[in-house]
Amino acid sequence: MKHVHNTEVKLEEPTERGVKDVKLRWLISKKDGAENFAMRLFEMEPEGHTPLHQHDWEHEVFILEGNGTIKNKTNEEIFRGGDVIFVPSMEWHQFVNTGKEKLKFLCLIPNKE
Amino acid sequence: MKHVHNTEVKLEEPTERGVKDVKLRWLISKKDGAENFAMRLFEMEPEGHTPLHQHDWEHEVFILEGNGTIKNKTNEEIFRGGDVIFVPSMEWHQFVNTGKEKLKFLCLIPNKE
Repeated sequence: MKHVHNTEVKLEEPTERGVKDVKLRWLISKKDGAENFAMRLFEMEPEGHTPLHQHDWEHEVFILEGNGTIKNKTNEEIFRGGDVIFVPSMEWHQFVNTGKEKLKFLCLIPNKE
Repeated sequence: MKHVHNTEVKLEEPTERGVKDVKLRWLISKKDGAENFAMRLFEMEPEGHTPLHQHDWEHEVFILEGNGTIKNKTNEEIFRGGDVIFVPSMEWHQFVNTGKEKLKFLCLIPNKE
């Protein structure tokens, strides 16, 4: 069993282009023996965002704190703490912190082969 | 995309024996098109618990609110909001609400074939 407080897990800079003021913690991953999927915690400053992108894996997201919007190429939806978002594979998406506080959310992904 | 507040998802009674004062919401599952893994939110009253059991799939857990202990046959560990717990496949485990408030946690599991 692995048991830690999320803040004990290293806060890393994402390497992807188009990310602004975002850091993440890999809370549970293959390194822990998790073969099927990984749990990451994202921390995003106000006005920070992820890229508007698409990829061939899904996201399962739970908003922990803060407010923001999720956008695709034509629409956007406001979210808040306690919201649940499922982004299917190949769907365009971008997370933006539109609030005044730090935005924190869990984003789980399947492991790549 | 699916986007809801967690409280909009039906609160269900688990059917497993050995569960006490626990309800759960299937936030993201195969019904939503999530092929690889499912996100459930557990709500447990004070003194409630899951069974002490083992099974051939893992748990990825994030404690949202409340306090409790996770037990196996010989040990127990206290947890609190913001804690992360990975229970590997076949490891004995039981979640107990030892606090005075409702315990809420996310527990994600791989989908069965």
